[in-house]
Amino acid sequence: MNEFLKVNPWLLVEEGFAPERIKSSESLFALGNGVMGGRANFEEKYSGESLQGNYIGGVYYPDKTRVGWWKNGYPEYFAKVLNSAFWIGVDIRINGEELDLAQTEVLDFHREMDMRRSVLTRRMRVRMHNDTEVEIEAVRFISLDRRELGVVRYSVMPLNRDAQVTFAPYIDADVRNTDANYDEKFWEEVRTESDAVQSRTKKSGFEVAWAQAVTLEGAEFQVETRPERVCHTSTVNCRQGEKKTLFKYVGISSSMNHPAEELLATARKVAHEAQETGFDALLERHEAAWAARWHSCDVTIEGDDEAQQGIRFCIFMLLQTYTGVDTRLNIGPKGFTGEKYGGVTYWDTEAYCLSFYMATAGQEVARELLKYRYNQLDKAIENAGKLGFGEGAALYPMVTINGEECHNEWEITFEEIHRNGAIAHAIAEYIRYTGDKAYLAQYGLEVLIAIARFWAQRITWSAARKQYVLLGVTGPNEYENNVNNNWYTSYIACWCLRYAAEAAEWVRRNYPEEYRRIVEKRNFDEAAECGKWSEINAKMYLGEDRELGIFLQQDNYLDKEQMTAEQLDPAERPINQKWSWDRILRSCFIKQADVLQGIYFFQEDFDVETIRRNFHFYEPRTVHESSLSPCVHAILATKIGDMDKAYEMYLRTSRLDLDDYNREVEEGCHVTSMAGSWKSVIEGFGGMSMEDDTLAFTPRLPRAWRALTFRINYRGRILSVKVTHDTVLVENEGSPVTIKLCGETLLLDKQATRSL
Amino acid sequence: MNEFLKVNPWLLVEEGFAPERIKSSESLFALGNGVMGGRANFEEKYSGESLQGNYIGGVYYPDKTRVGWWKNGYPEYFAKVLNSAFWIGVDIRINGEELDLAQTEVLDFHREMDMRRSVLTRRMRVRMHNDTEVEIEAVRFISLDRRELGVVRYSVMPLNRDAQVTFAPYIDADVRNTDANYDEKFWEEVRTESDAVQSRTKKSGFEVAWAQAVTLEGAEFQVETRPERVCHTSTVNCRQGEKKTLFKYVGISSSMNHPAEELLATARKVAHEAQETGFDALLERHEAAWAARWHSCDVTIEGDDEAQQGIRFCIFMLLQTYTGVDTRLNIGPKGFTGEKYGGVTYWDTEAYCLSFYMATAGQEVARELLKYRYNQLDKAIENAGKLGFGEGAALYPMVTINGEECHNEWEITFEEIHRNGAIAHAIAEYIRYTGDKAYLAQYGLEVLIAIARFWAQRITWSAARKQYVLLGVTGPNEYENNVNNNWYTSYIACWCLRYAAEAAEWVRRNYPEEYRRIVEKRNFDEAAECGKWSEINAKMYLGEDRELGIFLQQDNYLDKEQMTAEQLDPAERPINQKWSWDRILRSCFIKQADVLQGIYFFQEDFDVETIRRNFHFYEPRTVHESSLSPCVHAILATKIGDMDKAYEMYLRTSRLDLDDYNREVEEGCHVTSMAGSWKSVIEGFGGMSMEDDTLAFTPRLPRAWRALTFRINYRGRILSVKVTHDTVLVENEGSPVTIKLCGETLLLDKQATRSL
Repeated sequence: MNEFLKVNPWLLVEEGFAPERIKSSESLFALGNGVMGGRANFEEKYSGESLQGNYIGGVYYPDKTRVGWWKNGYPEYFAKVLNSAFWIGVDIRINGEELDLAQTEVLDFHREMDMRRSVLTRRMRVRMHNDTEVEIEAVRFISLDRRELGVVRYSVMPLNRDAQVTFAPYIDADVRNTDANYDEKFWEEVRTESDAVQSRTKKSGFEVAWAQAVTLEGAEFQVETRPERVCHTSTVNCRQGEKKTLFKYVGISSSMNHPAEELLATARKVAHEAQETGFDALLERHEAAWAARWHSCDVTIEGDDEAQQGIRFCIFMLLQTYTGVDTRLNIGPKGFTGEKYGGVTYWDTEAYCLSFYMATAGQEVARELLKYRYNQLDKAIENAGKLGFGEGAALYPMVTINGEECHNEWEITFEEIHRNGAIAHAIAEYIRYTGDKAYLAQYGLEVLIAIARFWAQRITWSAARKQYVLLGVTGPNEYENNVNNNWYTSYIACWCLRYAAEAAEWVRRNYPEEYRRIVEKRNFDEAAECGKWSEINAKMYLGEDRELGIFLQQDNYLDKEQMTAEQLDPAERPINQKWSWDRILRSCFIKQADVLQGIYFFQEDFDVETIRRNFHFYEPRTVHESSLSPCVHAILATKIGDMDKAYEMYLRTSRLDLDDYNREVEEGCHVTSMAGSWKSVIEGFGGMSMEDDTLAFTPRLPRAWRALTFRINYRGRILSVKVTHDTVLVENEGSPVTIKLCGETLLLDKQATRSL
Repeated sequence: MNEFLKVNPWLLVEEGFAPERIKSSESLFALGNGVMGGRANFEEKYSGESLQGNYIGGVYYPDKTRVGWWKNGYPEYFAKVLNSAFWIGVDIRINGEELDLAQTEVLDFHREMDMRRSVLTRRMRVRMHNDTEVEIEAVRFISLDRRELGVVRYSVMPLNRDAQVTFAPYIDADVRNTDANYDEKFWEEVRTESDAVQSRTKKSGFEVAWAQAVTLEGAEFQVETRPERVCHTSTVNCRQGEKKTLFKYVGISSSMNHPAEELLATARKVAHEAQETGFDALLERHEAAWAARWHSCDVTIEGDDEAQQGIRFCIFMLLQTYTGVDTRLNIGPKGFTGEKYGGVTYWDTEAYCLSFYMATAGQEVARELLKYRYNQLDKAIENAGKLGFGEGAALYPMVTINGEECHNEWEITFEEIHRNGAIAHAIAEYIRYTGDKAYLAQYGLEVLIAIARFWAQRITWSAARKQYVLLGVTGPNEYENNVNNNWYTSYIACWCLRYAAEAAEWVRRNYPEEYRRIVEKRNFDEAAECGKWSEINAKMYLGEDRELGIFLQQDNYLDKEQMTAEQLDPAERPINQKWSWDRILRSCFIKQADVLQGIYFFQEDFDVETIRRNFHFYEPRTVHESSLSPCVHAILATKIGDMDKAYEMYLRTSRLDLDDYNREVEEGCHVTSMAGSWKSVIEGFGGMSMEDDTLAFTPRLPRAWRALTFRINYRGRILSVKVTHDTVLVENEGSPVTIKLCGETLLLDKQATRSL
């Protein structure tokens, strides 16, 4: 385990300067406010190894696809959220010598992230080559209260002599992506003025302006500009023990929200208003906004500080990444912590993240996530069309930012079609949790029809088997490709067919006008189409092995040499780094929950014994080399009462990045899987689920914990749940609501408690 | 059909200048002598669209692999035979104006390739902007007699006035590949002297020198050099109607054959000796060498000039591409006609080309082809090792030039492993045809053991089926990937296991010393290993459908929607251009013979009814979008007596490039498939096969033909076979030999004839 970060319930704390850890810490200490964010790069120059990253949600560049061998149907580009201007910069000179931790003697280094308020603080003591010792404190936040504002406070104090200190706060828009298929620069200058820069992304034409307002008591600034860069420089005399503090307020406005011609003025206004408001007042409002966030979603774990810190970090990162204020945004796998996966949307959103945002930020935010896909429906229909499907069938992209497919590996792009199922499933999950069934009439049904149409075309009638089959797919287990009858995909496909038909009937009965609109808009023939869906559903082949009592992950799975992950030499793990792809494909090892993912999604369809048999068969074969895997196993393990396995899986998921299990956190944090960690606490140990349309709790703690407390937003109320080994207590801040507690239905007024 | 080329039994003739056809003609009129060759670029400047190509067999560059998503096991580079110096160049100025057919009025244009002697001639009349009309004749050949020599004769005659004519023969080594993954230049200069250039390939370090000697009666040349380019310029006064003729002799020597420091001298010597010998004498020797070639392999078809031209073109291209003088060389899919596929070796060599070279160039040449793989055995063992196999198992690469794998598409690189079978099969085919069973002891057995070891490891025991299965392969039909139990692959794998065991036993009994050498070198435990192979062979699952009476191409094939190619809208073909890859994968359509390829390889194992049932099932589902497909179908169609289908398939294969069926000949000709065309004539209509160890003929002509005559080299004799609709006549130029004629075994002395 990594011992670098101190265990602390509310803080991430790094002590001591370790250049080899800089990139990892840049990921872990990243800041974000849901619409923009960035890695924890230093404000001052740093010539050591670092990955610069500042990202603006939704501002992307279509990077031309790179492949070895082109296949028809591949997209032309991969849209990626791109590294944008380095707005945090403050170059420092001490008696003329540049401050650069890679070149300077670092005597003391302390970095901390206060997760309660999303404030990043760095304190350090350095000795320059000119023997001047200085103490530095840098504090930074990206305002949750004013979404276009970033703030830096940077103090320097000479310790052993008087010194001339030069502060040079700057904005540098001349930046590149590390991840660029053809080493192109993605930005071009629009204009550079004395305090602001405006740039445009090539091809996609997004424009962004950055403006800074700087304050340093008693100092005058000189302006230095060059294309794509503005810098304000001031040199002050500083007595020994005297602290000089720079305040830097940066407005960041994009053409996603303002006309391009107003961007500079807008950014400037944000910066200058902030300067007038002042650092302390801005921070106070920012903290208040964060306190409100935490109020509805904090989780406390007594008796296990590591677990406590782990889950807080997960929640914190999720809150920093997405807030639901903008339907055009979504949750990239790395959030604002790195370039990898391009900041684009995967099925992670629906399969893992929705529950978290729904139960913390509430119904409106969850609805925004669903509408993101609704807004991209016509693109999904186009996408299916490119692959040869017609008549309004939709295939949602594997990876997207604007609705167009960006992924380019045939076995995933064309075959990992189960993503379509997760998108339908999220609609059902949303409606069950919120009760907002009207969503079907407004938006949901159109999506469900288009998805059902896809499955109806993609499923094949096998004249040989006299059953419907689903050929050539890749399941969640990406360690097998182009398989036939992947159980998970077939199961969710059938469920989609049923659910779409039920939804159509419900809308027809309850919202006849909306129904007519949809029938016309989508050319929907309910009788014929639902008839076909029902026939497919009735005659669908779903593999199982009766002798083992398990569902078959795919045809031929049992033809493989059967081994368990325990039998693997630890030196050969992770197999995705140690084995050839060929060997992985032919092995029985499972990258992430596949059949178990399906059982998790549709728990009510299966009795505990069925879950247990499948769990005991598939769990030992799963190597969890996707960050999205252990959380599902943790939840199912609690269902079957295997608390040790559940706890093992929980540890694996919740501190994945903090402890850098996979030695890759320097690329960014696994943000979407953090929602899975939250699920494993709330749905696993907290035992929260929807039973029919009622919120239910059947909690059970792992041995190591004394108590678990969590808060959720349920239909507009904040519920607090406290679980110990003996009792569960639910408190309600809002109006009474029916829940199920340990199997018993009750009307929850202020509070209820049950023994365990 | 393309009407551009005239139908002529021995000539390719192009009349009229058509810029849009230039690149296609560059491919079709390409020259080669087995060790080097090049496209039919013009000698004089041509600023229109053109693909410059001059290739030296075996001189390659390792171009860094480009992929979208890296997978463990991918090779680091793709070795490609690269475009090398433009040695044919002769710039021409007429009264100071540069001759460039893209800029000049072309009054007459005639190009012809005399396939009998491999001489390319171009005659044309042009009118310059300065109104001077000139007649030009350019003759070029690459000597089959002196393998390092290329010769150009270039004549200019002013027609309507006197003119100053400038001849500027040059060598330009400053060339690039069109196909370069990262737009790199592959060559660097070693030195440039007054008449010669020496260059080195980057990374691979091959060196090549080109030297020219030029003659123009009564003229002096001025030397102009710049790095990587030498040019000799002479301007002569030429009266109206007077022809001035330049002779250009180019020596081309590579470090594959000479020490690098002797290259310039060697190339210069070749050029100067040629200059002394003179054009006519050189041409005579070249023609004699070609006559000898044709003597053992010509095919004549009476009554069908298109078919005649088609098969001559195929044979001609094969003779130009490979002669067997150098074990390090092999047969690239495009020969010396283009860059595509990098001039590297595929399974085409063993599965298609071996028969042709064996039956025309003879045993020694065929043996060279086998030894190419023997020499790369240790690399094939390494290659298998990279994928996780051990204990001396070999996986020959999908694509290679030096034995290392170059291909980088997992579904082919790792899974199209049937290539291993073809390499073993070629050994058996060679031994049957030549009788050279001792080859096993010298080289063959080692290869067979390593291949059998691979299969034994790659085949899986299915505890569920209680049979051995072969999971995750791609068959010859590349329109399905990662399938289970591909019949062709499984069948040839089993055959390899049996054949390797038989070979081991035979070598042990007949060459005990060689056997001991092999046992020790390869750590071979015959009892244990052959025991295992025999067990696998006995319990191997081979799919069949009893009801249909066919072998199953792969598991789940019959689950697909069954259609025939005839049901396809012609506008949707070829499907590899019109359909998404996804749609292709899920369709039942077969790119190229797969089960039928296996039936073709192992014809003796199947009765005619079995062949007929499988043919009638698979043929209609095959779209023949690989050039390697129709020939196999043509041969099997003759076996089952479907002569119309056989003829249709023959036309498709033999004039594929001449008529540019696939609209891609501008990239180069399909050289390896031309061996398939030859097979379809000789093994199909000529009915030639090996029955046990006896050469047999059971010929049958298509209706359109009056007679078919062919010559083959069989065990050192030239046999001539003449087939009409009524009779077959076999003549023998050598010592008596036993053959089977129409089912009857006889000792063939001078000749034999049978009625049909």
